[in-house]
Amino acid sequence: MSWLTASYLVTCAERDIAARADGIASEQSVECPVEAITEQRILDEIVARVTAIEPAGPGRFRVDVAIAAQTIGANPVQFINMVFGNASLWDDVSFVALEVPEDVLARFPGPRHGIAGIRRLLGAPDRALTNAAMKPQGLHVPELAAMCRTFALAGVDMIKDDHGIDDQGYSPFAERVRACQAAIAEAVAATGKPALYAPNLIGTPRVLRERARIAREEGVRAVLVAPMLVGLPAFFDLVDEFPDFVYLAHPSFGGARAIAPELLFGRLLRLFGSDAVIFVNVGGRFGYTRATCAALANGARAPWGNLRATLPVPAGGMRMERIEELLEFYGPDSMLLIGGNLLIEHSRVLERTREFVERVAAHRYSVRTPN
Amino acid sequence: MSWLTASYLVTCAERDIAARADGIASEQSVECPVEAITEQRILDEIVARVTAIEPAGPGRFRVDVAIAAQTIGANPVQFINMVFGNASLWDDVSFVALEVPEDVLARFPGPRHGIAGIRRLLGAPDRALTNAAMKPQGLHVPELAAMCRTFALAGVDMIKDDHGIDDQGYSPFAERVRACQAAIAEAVAATGKPALYAPNLIGTPRVLRERARIAREEGVRAVLVAPMLVGLPAFFDLVDEFPDFVYLAHPSFGGARAIAPELLFGRLLRLFGSDAVIFVNVGGRFGYTRATCAALANGARAPWGNLRATLPVPAGGMRMERIEELLEFYGPDSMLLIGGNLLIEHSRVLERTREFVERVAAHRYSVRTPN
Repeated sequence: MSWLTASYLVTCAERDIAARADGIASEQSVECPVEAITEQRILDEIVARVTAIEPAGPGRFRVDVAIAAQTIGANPVQFINMVFGNASLWDDVSFVALEVPEDVLARFPGPRHGIAGIRRLLGAPDRALTNAAMKPQGLHVPELAAMCRTFALAGVDMIKDDHGIDDQGYSPFAERVRACQAAIAEAVAATGKPALYAPNLIGTPRVLRERARIAREEGVRAVLVAPMLVGLPAFFDLVDEFPDFVYLAHPSFGGARAIAPELLFGRLLRLFGSDAVIFVNVGGRFGYTRATCAALANGARAPWGNLRATLPVPAGGMRMERIEELLEFYGPDSMLLIGGNLLIEHSRVLERTREFVERVAAHRYSVRTPN
Repeated sequence: MSWLTASYLVTCAERDIAARADGIASEQSVECPVEAITEQRILDEIVARVTAIEPAGPGRFRVDVAIAAQTIGANPVQFINMVFGNASLWDDVSFVALEVPEDVLARFPGPRHGIAGIRRLLGAPDRALTNAAMKPQGLHVPELAAMCRTFALAGVDMIKDDHGIDDQGYSPFAERVRACQAAIAEAVAATGKPALYAPNLIGTPRVLRERARIAREEGVRAVLVAPMLVGLPAFFDLVDEFPDFVYLAHPSFGGARAIAPELLFGRLLRLFGSDAVIFVNVGGRFGYTRATCAALANGARAPWGNLRATLPVPAGGMRMERIEELLEFYGPDSMLLIGGNLLIEHSRVLERTREFVERVAAHRYSVRTPN
């Protein structure tokens, strides 16, 4: 018998925590009063059980719940249902950690390329990588393609669509992907330095598949997908059907109030197959702490069964001034993503981007182990 | 030019609210510094704009943002991305309301059956409806089928799988659906009263489609799906591909911290095609207030463009004692779902369920307009 352990933070009075913990265990397994269960087998093998309750600050507790692997079977969606389905509906419960036994972990292929695969494609065996975003949406295709070419000429490793760029009239998907991929190919031919264009795949599962085919036909090797937005299950299917793409996960719709960011972005998206994961960096436009970002990046890279390592991509209001600080913090197994900050001096985008690339390549790390 | 209005609650100091509101407008459209935008067309037609800021309690503000319909196009997933993509990542922002112009609303067929269609299938033109859940997971197929038969003999309108029942070894999907559908058909033949079995569809998009085909072949007319769990986009595709099913939405993984429950369950799930929507009822195992539940139920039923009305299904720890109170509160355009509470006296499930059905049918409403 194999059991997963899911951990939750619960805000409540000390006298209530035992009952709350039992409530979570019921909700995440049989979801009915124990009195309604007459079969001993179900009580022994199916009902989830509380294995630990520990204080986690004033009025807060960490609860570990063992969940029977047989309730999950081999279905990745049922996996999410059983670790954080109904419990996500409580305002005072968040899902913060997960231990997956080897036999369950072995059902997940995880990233098909991971950090090592991305490094191979880019011919960059050890330095930190760079990423730039094409913004704003509303630009027409020739302007986007020109921006793509500029970034590639400056030596950026990966160039992604802004996550708001879909298939709008001003930049239709097929036309844009063809033009941007061609612009990158041209720049790569000129400089001899590899670069990847990552178009944004967004839509229902049928639309995702159709666009993935178009991208593949155009020779695209990397794609941007927001797994929480397109749905973790659709993301899982997409990775399975199109394993040749490098998957760069975008955090859109990933509202992390209910799932700890380090768990959602650092672990679950890795389990579901992200090769690289964009997250909102400490000190940017969002409120993640240093500790959260460190835990997230380390979770994405740490050994975890046979899953490949996922590349952390800090983003969200990144400024040039912070390049060295962030390299020290995240180390070379990372990809820095600068968005709007590359574009603020309109006549100097090439120079500014080149400076970004060069500062990342030139950095000498003062510590061997980041964060 | 057509604009949606999305409304957010923001917790912050009064001196910061103008900047926070501008930040949301940027995040939900161009996601870059305005200085980086040189084209007047983009500034005029693409950048979202703050249209109102109002106090909403101490240290809280309601912010209305107009979002250009052309940034959304005809893609339902991009719709979610533009109304609450990156903004979902802020802990102090929640998405609480939405106004959709008619031309955008017309792109969404919404529920294919809705309240009127469910009533027709059940031959129940005006009374409140009843729903019972098969629990606990872990039961074998003959036991589940027997429970299905018992509930149908007692006269329950809709009988659903527990949302934890997937395709596990103890109750494989195809075998279970065949047996439960046959058990219901047998009971319906005996009583002459229609009943719907709603098996749980859970999996990646490919699995959903495969199971929907099996269910359709077995003559199933209603299905249970957790849209936030399988992903809103996969749900949208499923409804489109299998329009003959009545879709009963389950709230699993719908952690409502970032999206107001009345908006997520009352509006977004209707927009995406739920005919009936299960939500966690006030006074049950979850913390929704009376006001939230009333707003949710009313949002599901209120006129909204040409969208059919969605049937509210209060659930989550419902007890027999509350039947009359809840009928008064929700009115007859509702379906009461009782789960474990029907099963607590093991030898009297048929009698207890019959009482549930009869009390719902016999209720005389003291008020004409619920909640």
